[in-house]
Amino acid sequence: MNPTKKKIVGLAPDHAQNFYGRDIVSVMQFSRDDLDYIVGVADEMRSIVKRVGATDLLKGYVLANLFYEPSTRTSSSFIAAMERLGGMVIPIHGVQYSSVSKGESLPDTIRTLECYADVIVLRHPEVGASEVAARYASKPIISAGDGVGEHPTQGLLDLYTIQSELGTIDGLHVAMVGDLKNGRTVHSLARLLRLYDTRLTFVSPEILRLPEAIKQQMIEAGRPVAETSAVEQVIDTVDVLYVTRVQKERFADLREYEAVKDAYEITPDLMARAREHMALMHPLPRVGEIHYDVDDDPRAAYFRQMENGMYVRMALLAAVLGKA
Amino acid sequence: MNPTKKKIVGLAPDHAQNFYGRDIVSVMQFSRDDLDYIVGVADEMRSIVKRVGATDLLKGYVLANLFYEPSTRTSSSFIAAMERLGGMVIPIHGVQYSSVSKGESLPDTIRTLECYADVIVLRHPEVGASEVAARYASKPIISAGDGVGEHPTQGLLDLYTIQSELGTIDGLHVAMVGDLKNGRTVHSLARLLRLYDTRLTFVSPEILRLPEAIKQQMIEAGRPVAETSAVEQVIDTVDVLYVTRVQKERFADLREYEAVKDAYEITPDLMARAREHMALMHPLPRVGEIHYDVDDDPRAAYFRQMENGMYVRMALLAAVLGKA
Amino acid sequence: MNPTKKKIVGLAPDHAQNFYGRDIVSVMQFSRDDLDYIVGVADEMRSIVKRVGATDLLKGYVLANLFYEPSTRTSSSFIAAMERLGGMVIPIHGVQYSSVSKGESLPDTIRTLECYADVIVLRHPEVGASEVAARYASKPIISAGDGVGEHPTQGLLDLYTIQSELGTIDGLHVAMVGDLKNGRTVHSLARLLRLYDTRLTFVSPEILRLPEAIKQQMIEAGRPVAETSAVEQVIDTVDVLYVTRVQKERFADLREYEAVKDAYEITPDLMARAREHMALMHPLPRVGEIHYDVDDDPRAAYFRQMENGMYVRMALLAAVLGKA
Repeated sequence: MNPTKKKIVGLAPDHAQNFYGRDIVSVMQFSRDDLDYIVGVADEMRSIVKRVGATDLLKGYVLANLFYEPSTRTSSSFIAAMERLGGMVIPIHGVQYSSVSKGESLPDTIRTLECYADVIVLRHPEVGASEVAARYASKPIISAGDGVGEHPTQGLLDLYTIQSELGTIDGLHVAMVGDLKNGRTVHSLARLLRLYDTRLTFVSPEILRLPEAIKQQMIEAGRPVAETSAVEQVIDTVDVLYVTRVQKERFADLREYEAVKDAYEITPDLMARAREHMALMHPLPRVGEIHYDVDDDPRAAYFRQMENGMYVRMALLAAVLGKA
Repeated sequence: MNPTKKKIVGLAPDHAQNFYGRDIVSVMQFSRDDLDYIVGVADEMRSIVKRVGATDLLKGYVLANLFYEPSTRTSSSFIAAMERLGGMVIPIHGVQYSSVSKGESLPDTIRTLECYADVIVLRHPEVGASEVAARYASKPIISAGDGVGEHPTQGLLDLYTIQSELGTIDGLHVAMVGDLKNGRTVHSLARLLRLYDTRLTFVSPEILRLPEAIKQQMIEAGRPVAETSAVEQVIDTVDVLYVTRVQKERFADLREYEAVKDAYEITPDLMARAREHMALMHPLPRVGEIHYDVDDDPRAAYFRQMENGMYVRMALLAAVLGKA
Repeated sequence: MNPTKKKIVGLAPDHAQNFYGRDIVSVMQFSRDDLDYIVGVADEMRSIVKRVGATDLLKGYVLANLFYEPSTRTSSSFIAAMERLGGMVIPIHGVQYSSVSKGESLPDTIRTLECYADVIVLRHPEVGASEVAARYASKPIISAGDGVGEHPTQGLLDLYTIQSELGTIDGLHVAMVGDLKNGRTVHSLARLLRLYDTRLTFVSPEILRLPEAIKQQMIEAGRPVAETSAVEQVIDTVDVLYVTRVQKERFADLREYEAVKDAYEITPDLMARAREHMALMHPLPRVGEIHYDVDDDPRAAYFRQMENGMYVRMALLAAVLGKA
């Protein structure tokens, strides 16, 4: 452990300057003010990129982009974010074949990389790896997902997308669809939404229900929660339909999987029954959950959602380096 | 498909401004004027690099360098090209192990990457992949080769090298040697040369002759075409000798391969019979087709050809981003 | 071979301007003046990074970072070094799956990459690969280790760390511990230290003694050399304790390995007997040679040693490009 490290993982309510030097490892670390702040900075980042493509805000700063498992989408998004901020990147992928295969511990790898870089983005297959990294690092760690655990920047970009698509988060009816048991993106987003005045409906087959612990967090926060097995029951009232992948491997009986797969596919017919002003979201990649014919629907927000990922990550990088 | 996409893949004869926002997916899309234009811009790029190493022409722009199969040479060339233009790169290699392995479609991957990048370079093992990518993308796609199909930037750098080595392309006798049946680089170059007043001789074993369709394109364009099995027949009259690899796998009878291999090796002895002012080219990598003792011959143009690849790719990147 | 190449691998005593255009392939190429010069430039680099993070010294220059075998630590260090100098990087990893697998020779790969880049860093599994690369390249080659052969930049960073930790190199007692037979880092450092007024003790099990040839180089240079099997014998008199990994694979009898492993572990108890002002070094990664509880000891210099690697590589990159 690094004795000179002075930071605390959790963020104080005094949000603005408090991001400086902090780690981003869990959606639970944010207050409502923190979230409002990041959403605001992300908006500024979008306006900069739209106008001039890039800034020199992080000129002279280096990001170590450390991916222990591949994730083209997330790693590309962080690389682009750092580069559009004028910073530089050390891309480290397929790391399993290197020092690590020589048996090095994660803390040693992290403490080595912070010798070269100013901030470390970490994707790791094991739950809790980001917290371990954060404990040993004196530079900020941003989790890019650890196992079935947290994926906080995904939660933040989803939140920012709702705000950006609908102009507000409070007062909305959000439905989450698909594998709610194993999908870490729905867990992260649900936890963030508990800080907003939202109504949540969880749509999934019986065997893929949201874990009880997360449902309890929502209820304790005073949020109305409902569960159903049919998308049809919510399609005409939702402001946000957040769809996730249902993986074949989760089912013992393959016929059951096929039935669920078909029942949860979002089609143009289904979208015809949805509100005129709503957002259809998906963390991507999709494998059949949303029909390609829906892509041209102006309510299909998933590619804008991808783009928002870059703005949110720009905001976080700038914030933890004290340059937001 | 992206409904907001307004571009057309083919280039209009109004070449200069017409590259802006276009895809580069086939050598057949270029007019003679287009080629003259790119050759001219490549020349400017070379002069910039020779004088000052790099420019800020593409400062603030991001290239996604998406390679579904490895190609050190081509990917390095594009990375260097973008960097020397002041732009930034998202390097994406070994992508098969990521989103794609989760079953994502190429259009979805492309539409995700264009959320982060301003231009996408795509190398893909399947014929036609670049055209598919171009159809769905709203940002420019530059093909870096798709299967045994097209490799348009290789054709352009070969053309530029001929111009650069000999000061002209019109009026030349160009001989292509080796596996003309399967070699996509000869296909691309031959197609480009049909727009110039060139005489072409195709030198290969019987079983590796140029496909009839490409030969017809040359003849229809009014270009004299000859075929032979012996390099000796052309060595003293060619202005350009373009050598390609003969792959062992193409032969059922291994003795036949060994005979061909030896018959087509370019040696100092053979070069002694060539013109004083001519260019020996090879797309590289070579595996014995050109003897190492030829490397010091001033007519050995293959490493300059490599370098020209960077200038041509700089020209294309600048052109499709409207900054040439 | 490149006929236009004018440089010589060895460095003349006229050290300052003599780095320009040279290769860095062996610790034996340096004079004492060369070393003093690089240590001085590395110090300047550190002060730049500490003050402002980065410079524009190598703006417009491109580094090809060519790793034929993975080494996260070394490759990240070179990438960060080049980026903090304002230069650009072509990262080439997992290259075995590309041109090389098509049978291309190392000289051809090198001569291709120098078409795109201004300097090449090469990590290769075969002894002597760097010398071969240097012979064919007209741009500078910096070895990042070739097989069990040399790893010159590691030697230089170790030397710089001793200077930086203790304010001098002359007059010190340096002990090297562990697998001295196979460890190329101890070989490189020992050879560099022969140019300084140092006393060396080599601590290892019988079967892992320093090769006789290297011991002879020390003795010929007039340096006092001692050998022992017990760390306890030197712990209270050393100024530098340089620890390396003992690999299980080296032992026929596994019980022997376990005994050695325990005998050579550096613990807080052992450090309690060391001088107050000394430096505990390790090239990392470690796998149990230094107990984690030692990390907080101010004499534990190994992470600063990592950081110094970046400064030394910045110094070398700037020097061979004539910008130091």
